[in-house]
Amino acid sequence: MGTRATVAIREPSLGPVFGTKGGAAGGGRAQVLPMEEINLHFTGDIHAVTAANNLIAAILDAHVFHGNELRIDTTRVMLPRCEDMNDRELRNIVVGLGGPKHGVPREDGFIITAASEVMAILCLAEGIADLKERLARAVVAFDREEKPVTVRDLYVHGAAAVLLRDALMPNLVQTIEGTPAIVHGGPFANIAHGTNTILADRLALGTSEVVVTEAGFGSDLGAEKFVDLVYRSSGIAPAAAVLVASVRALKHHGGARRKDLTVENLAALEAGFANLDAHLGILQTLGLPAVVAVNRFASDTDREIDSVLGHCEDRGAPAAAHTFHADGGEGGDELARAVHDAATRGDATVRPVYRDQDPFEEKVAKVATGIYGAGEVKYDAAALEDLERLRSAGLGDLPVCIAKTQLSLSDDESLRGAPKGWTLEVRGVRPSAGAGFLVVLAGDIVRMPLF
Amino acid sequence: MGTRATVAIREPSLGPVFGTKGGAAGGGRAQVLPMEEINLHFTGDIHAVTAANNLIAAILDAHVFHGNELRIDTTRVMLPRCEDMNDRELRNIVVGLGGPKHGVPREDGFIITAASEVMAILCLAEGIADLKERLARAVVAFDREEKPVTVRDLYVHGAAAVLLRDALMPNLVQTIEGTPAIVHGGPFANIAHGTNTILADRLALGTSEVVVTEAGFGSDLGAEKFVDLVYRSSGIAPAAAVLVASVRALKHHGGARRKDLTVENLAALEAGFANLDAHLGILQTLGLPAVVAVNRFASDTDREIDSVLGHCEDRGAPAAAHTFHADGGEGGDELARAVHDAATRGDATVRPVYRDQDPFEEKVAKVATGIYGAGEVKYDAAALEDLERLRSAGLGDLPVCIAKTQLSLSDDESLRGAPKGWTLEVRGVRPSAGAGFLVVLAGDIVRMPLF
Amino acid sequence: MGTRATVAIREPSLGPVFGTKGGAAGGGRAQVLPMEEINLHFTGDIHAVTAANNLIAAILDAHVFHGNELRIDTTRVMLPRCEDMNDRELRNIVVGLGGPKHGVPREDGFIITAASEVMAILCLAEGIADLKERLARAVVAFDREEKPVTVRDLYVHGAAAVLLRDALMPNLVQTIEGTPAIVHGGPFANIAHGTNTILADRLALGTSEVVVTEAGFGSDLGAEKFVDLVYRSSGIAPAAAVLVASVRALKHHGGARRKDLTVENLAALEAGFANLDAHLGILQTLGLPAVVAVNRFASDTDREIDSVLGHCEDRGAPAAAHTFHADGGEGGDELARAVHDAATRGDATVRPVYRDQDPFEEKVAKVATGIYGAGEVKYDAAALEDLERLRSAGLGDLPVCIAKTQLSLSDDESLRGAPKGWTLEVRGVRPSAGAGFLVVLAGDIVRMPLF
Amino acid sequence: MGTRATVAIREPSLGPVFGTKGGAAGGGRAQVLPMEEINLHFTGDIHAVTAANNLIAAILDAHVFHGNELRIDTTRVMLPRCEDMNDRELRNIVVGLGGPKHGVPREDGFIITAASEVMAILCLAEGIADLKERLARAVVAFDREEKPVTVRDLYVHGAAAVLLRDALMPNLVQTIEGTPAIVHGGPFANIAHGTNTILADRLALGTSEVVVTEAGFGSDLGAEKFVDLVYRSSGIAPAAAVLVASVRALKHHGGARRKDLTVENLAALEAGFANLDAHLGILQTLGLPAVVAVNRFASDTDREIDSVLGHCEDRGAPAAAHTFHADGGEGGDELARAVHDAATRGDATVRPVYRDQDPFEEKVAKVATGIYGAGEVKYDAAALEDLERLRSAGLGDLPVCIAKTQLSLSDDESLRGAPKGWTLEVRGVRPSAGAGFLVVLAGDIVRMPLF
Repeated sequence: MGTRATVAIREPSLGPVFGTKGGAAGGGRAQVLPMEEINLHFTGDIHAVTAANNLIAAILDAHVFHGNELRIDTTRVMLPRCEDMNDRELRNIVVGLGGPKHGVPREDGFIITAASEVMAILCLAEGIADLKERLARAVVAFDREEKPVTVRDLYVHGAAAVLLRDALMPNLVQTIEGTPAIVHGGPFANIAHGTNTILADRLALGTSEVVVTEAGFGSDLGAEKFVDLVYRSSGIAPAAAVLVASVRALKHHGGARRKDLTVENLAALEAGFANLDAHLGILQTLGLPAVVAVNRFASDTDREIDSVLGHCEDRGAPAAAHTFHADGGEGGDELARAVHDAATRGDATVRPVYRDQDPFEEKVAKVATGIYGAGEVKYDAAALEDLERLRSAGLGDLPVCIAKTQLSLSDDESLRGAPKGWTLEVRGVRPSAGAGFLVVLAGDIVRMPLF
Repeated sequence: MGTRATVAIREPSLGPVFGTKGGAAGGGRAQVLPMEEINLHFTGDIHAVTAANNLIAAILDAHVFHGNELRIDTTRVMLPRCEDMNDRELRNIVVGLGGPKHGVPREDGFIITAASEVMAILCLAEGIADLKERLARAVVAFDREEKPVTVRDLYVHGAAAVLLRDALMPNLVQTIEGTPAIVHGGPFANIAHGTNTILADRLALGTSEVVVTEAGFGSDLGAEKFVDLVYRSSGIAPAAAVLVASVRALKHHGGARRKDLTVENLAALEAGFANLDAHLGILQTLGLPAVVAVNRFASDTDREIDSVLGHCEDRGAPAAAHTFHADGGEGGDELARAVHDAATRGDATVRPVYRDQDPFEEKVAKVATGIYGAGEVKYDAAALEDLERLRSAGLGDLPVCIAKTQLSLSDDESLRGAPKGWTLEVRGVRPSAGAGFLVVLAGDIVRMPLF
Repeated sequence: MGTRATVAIREPSLGPVFGTKGGAAGGGRAQVLPMEEINLHFTGDIHAVTAANNLIAAILDAHVFHGNELRIDTTRVMLPRCEDMNDRELRNIVVGLGGPKHGVPREDGFIITAASEVMAILCLAEGIADLKERLARAVVAFDREEKPVTVRDLYVHGAAAVLLRDALMPNLVQTIEGTPAIVHGGPFANIAHGTNTILADRLALGTSEVVVTEAGFGSDLGAEKFVDLVYRSSGIAPAAAVLVASVRALKHHGGARRKDLTVENLAALEAGFANLDAHLGILQTLGLPAVVAVNRFASDTDREIDSVLGHCEDRGAPAAAHTFHADGGEGGDELARAVHDAATRGDATVRPVYRDQDPFEEKVAKVATGIYGAGEVKYDAAALEDLERLRSAGLGDLPVCIAKTQLSLSDDESLRGAPKGWTLEVRGVRPSAGAGFLVVLAGDIVRMPLF
Repeated sequence: MGTRATVAIREPSLGPVFGTKGGAAGGGRAQVLPMEEINLHFTGDIHAVTAANNLIAAILDAHVFHGNELRIDTTRVMLPRCEDMNDRELRNIVVGLGGPKHGVPREDGFIITAASEVMAILCLAEGIADLKERLARAVVAFDREEKPVTVRDLYVHGAAAVLLRDALMPNLVQTIEGTPAIVHGGPFANIAHGTNTILADRLALGTSEVVVTEAGFGSDLGAEKFVDLVYRSSGIAPAAAVLVASVRALKHHGGARRKDLTVENLAALEAGFANLDAHLGILQTLGLPAVVAVNRFASDTDREIDSVLGHCEDRGAPAAAHTFHADGGEGGDELARAVHDAATRGDATVRPVYRDQDPFEEKVAKVATGIYGAGEVKYDAAALEDLERLRSAGLGDLPVCIAKTQLSLSDDESLRGAPKGWTLEVRGVRPSAGAGFLVVLAGDIVRMPLF
């Protein structure tokens, strides 16, 4: 377990990255991409996901407009439109206004493409046939008898799959030192399942001794989801986990104010170890040997770095500071060796948090209390209604993908460190039958961010 | 005047087309694209336009949400969101619902990306600096004092230009015979200005003796708009026009029923010549020598083809039937020669339909009566209000880009042949200050198509 | 023709009015009402109309919600909700939001109760049975096959009639001098048909020698509508018309500014005679002998009053100034005698403006040109679509009730005096099948006023 | 405690009731009203409340439209529009659509007039001055700094009070036996505070030895609210409570099916005594001596009636069956005597459930557990946000008016008998600062009923 080439991809300060888009299907296309292109449209995969998702949505509404043979209940449409933009204004909208020629009025909303089920499907698909089949069984709505309506019923899974044909091919790039890296798929780990495509992992596994892949945000989000969703779906078992830490983040969790994070503060740092320890505990629960990677910033002092490394030693966790972002491969030799050791030692015994047959509430409770440190789980009335409908539709037993803030181990971004005894508040449950899980909306999370 | 490599690009039945995306900025990137990619996401230019447009829209709403310092009147927002999808349901929507955290309620709508001002700007820009400047002056809304608010006021023109950086580079592809073709930009000629990018034209003009570029749909739309908008903006003057005709279309305009179009019907064909003649007349009015290209279909009979060619000869217009789509270059030798002759003979004297200083109503009237054959122009009250506001904002004198159906010379798709004496009904006027024209909505036209 | 006890009812400056609500149905109820009660809720008739209208609307939506057996097209609902309040915010709304339990989303709007078809029905009904039958045939929507759906189809005409049972009884009040007056029904003459109930007229005609009834606003509105709608429906033929004029209004129509209306200005007054003459012409066209009643204000000078009376004499129209509002019956002896003479002389030959069998456009054109002084009539596309649907439903031949501004003889409130050659702009047509006419929306008129 | 002349007013089967509307302001108006008028518009009081409420709403939106000097946050408007109609479709709406002339878009909703704060104010006002003052301090919205905006800020409390001037006067009617009864005010006890006007009570108390007034629905709703809201506000302390029971309702609470309620079933009846006992316990908690009034239906058997009376005797509660509805005063002689005894014995010690200074959550918890029998109280996130805003506005300490279903002692209508250990779910809190309490929305309750 670790990061999907995070350093190279997500840090614009790194400077130019050159990569090659791996030829597929005999095409042999090759691109040299400056860094900005990864941060802008890259190979257009996210736009393709947007297009596939919105095609399904448009066909659904066209079906309703042209007589609604499937008797879709337009107050229970489950597939929101999406776009790759932070656009708060589109979260809750009314569409189809303007009179008889312009559609059928209903409530809808946009989510960010990274949170769409089509993105999740792209990332979990084992190939084009599986992609198409997963699209086909995605639930887009309920009908007036509360039965699920799928993409297959709309007969648009083929067209949607065609729109994703290229996007399904992993993208090979290289770092400025020439190290190959695959950048493919973009679900966020707070509002979605947060990991790379399975095809990219398989491609990397077939060509490398060790593959380092990203599971987004903290171990509560990315690591839990990798184990409970990706490993459960694909059988790809991580051999170890790289836990990324920084002095600044630990001081934040130890109570320091944002503007003071660049000032040495050993007391706050030590207070923040509770957060680091909680993440180490989560990885232990998941059965993954951990290596702590300390991102070293210019403002960090030696005493601070030593304090973190010393704490890890006390906890028995291998750890190393690194400066990959400033010095390239040279900057992380020790870390790389530690990760290689952990990944090849064979100590991992991957343990999903819950079993397939656990009832929905038990699945959620096990993640909430066993991973997040919650005291209990509370369901809003709307969530209970969602759940009942999903159960009637035979979808109640799917694994759970909990959407919650990444700023705290809890569902409340103001709680720092390692909060205990708090209540996870569940406000809604959405089907992702094609991806193969239920999305559980917790706390204040919304699936469309904002500027 | 002619077509932007239409045959190669828009006919999926043509079979595989291989092309090369021209290297820019030293990158030297090259792609071999199967035909489907042109019809799917291609190089992602349209998605980039969507992203740039929707970034501006999202920033506008975020500005309003965060206190609305510019005092934007949210009932007078001029920049709709867009997507590259036929989605009737998004034509008229209410956004920003859901309470205080989720935006500010207002009416909005999506148009198809091809009809967006950002697409027009991309196609008319002379380079990246001009692109950015045109984006900056695009009018996104009016404020509470009815003054225009621009993209520059929102300070998002730079970011939008960055999103369009790659899209601005022309895309070079080749036909299956190896002929180079540039495919770049996608405004529709019915709901937008309908022509290729100026950068693509300049690139082609710098490397070829004769450039054939598409001006979409009939001469009433594409040709008039090329002359009045593209030529006026860029100074690129066409040397001749290729008027594409088909036996089937002429029989349709002569009154034949759709299901009978494959049956020989000389009477209907001759009745349809009125439409052909009207187009020849329009090209004459615009000062462009015309060559008639007769697309030959398998169901056309020799007598029908001969009848069309004979009619053209009577009219003094060079004409040739061709089978490019079935036989490649071989299929159109005679046509190619005729176009080359016309283009190099130097007979053109390009004549815009109206002058810059003509009042708005006169501009519209000259196009309506002089090109379309209308008897008069009628303005709905909403259109008059739009116009008054645009005039107060100092935008009343821009050239006009009339959006109307492509299925008739009139604004009513049920009128075939060469209708006369009808009334052009203007229902709205929208600013495209960055593109440099006013969009005039006529008849039933909507800028978001449907399934 | 004249005013429905206007002086007593509509002028709060008159001071207390005491009246008696006439006992009906054996009840013998009697109320002494201070003036304010007439201006506030009075006997609640308007509230009853609101309740009956909104009951029908609620039942329509409940029908749709519970399966929509009638296949109502919710984008073509013809019966708006109403309230007796100036509430701009409710003109255009979206209802039925909030999810599956809370209705079916659709566009709707409120109009002011005075403009509702139920109000028109109350005013035109000949009794409780006729009221119920008219309610039953009111068209509330079109179904998906574009056939009309009526209140009878919803089976709610009986319940709506019960809500109107008391409201149907005329209300008898008295002036401070003890003169009986009937106050009953409240359609405005600009946005509705503008006259008293027929039952009130019949009650008065059965008990008095001469009945003076109000037809609201100018002769272009109230008088035309009385003749073309009330007389056509009831056969009640006016014997004469009282044309109410004032020096201030004439100076306004002669070009004086609002703030200068209390200053003597004979030139403006004379310029304003064109408006008075136009009204006299209208009454002549309608076949009604006219008496001009000059409302005398404190700021009017003798020279101004004399000028008006002199002008009337020149025109051959009997005229008298009066001060009813200040002096009671004493203040208008001469006027009363003139009206009595005109009403009993038998000179009237009532002439409707159009015939039942005239096509819709001819009906509108005859009123527009023959009464209002328009040059022509123009239809917006929306109005033409409305008309086509109404014709398909067999409702195209009903008389027309044109809704337009009361501030000008034209449909544009800025045109004073007697404008000629302008164009009446028709923007919509609404069925009032129960009332027995089509409402024609002209110019900027909206049926929900504002604060 | 008892019923506000329920028998006479709410039972249409009773036959004609004749009453007299008490003369006020020297007018001496008198009406003889048939029974139906009470059930239809009666004296129009509810329509007046509707008008006053909607006037405030219209003025609020007009204020926003005309520049919004008060900086009202239109996403936090607290005063919904209302109408006296069951209209599900109006629960959640978007208003102000249609462009710049037609208002400012925002989310709104209608509630039924009985649930409006204006209705509560009318019922709690001690006179016209207090009415006006309470209207003035009603909170209609929050501004952009989250400060409360009141009716006084809009300067419309005077106009609203004028609209309620007549409605404030109690309505005196009489039963068919000539017994005077006052019918005045109409809040429902489930979605509002549920009791008669205080003015009516004072009028009755000033003219009678014993006043029987209604507190709607069960003792959990009407009785608790009378003690905690009406007694707290007015000081009017009940001397005793009449608990209305019926064999049918008890069998329902004992588990019998609806269609079997007319069949003798002593087992179900006895099982249902748990519900009766719970109500007796509530009245004891409130400090009110109880008399059980058993409404005798034709289908009740003697054994059933005897069983109920016997149970009451065992519990030490005076009880009597009656047939007022069939036999008039004769039918309830024993009951009347029992009520008189209880009311005049002086045993009452009225005990509010909570103290003014109890924090909000404690007030709710005391009612939920002490009166309803809940195990705990749960707050949805939305409710917590509401509460925080109300506290910031200084409104957090007001008494609480809990809106919940009347079909169960719990907030879940499916729980019969005397459920224990369930959780009261709070979903929202609304200010009624003019009425002097906070409305707490519990369970599935909505304040606009449906057909």
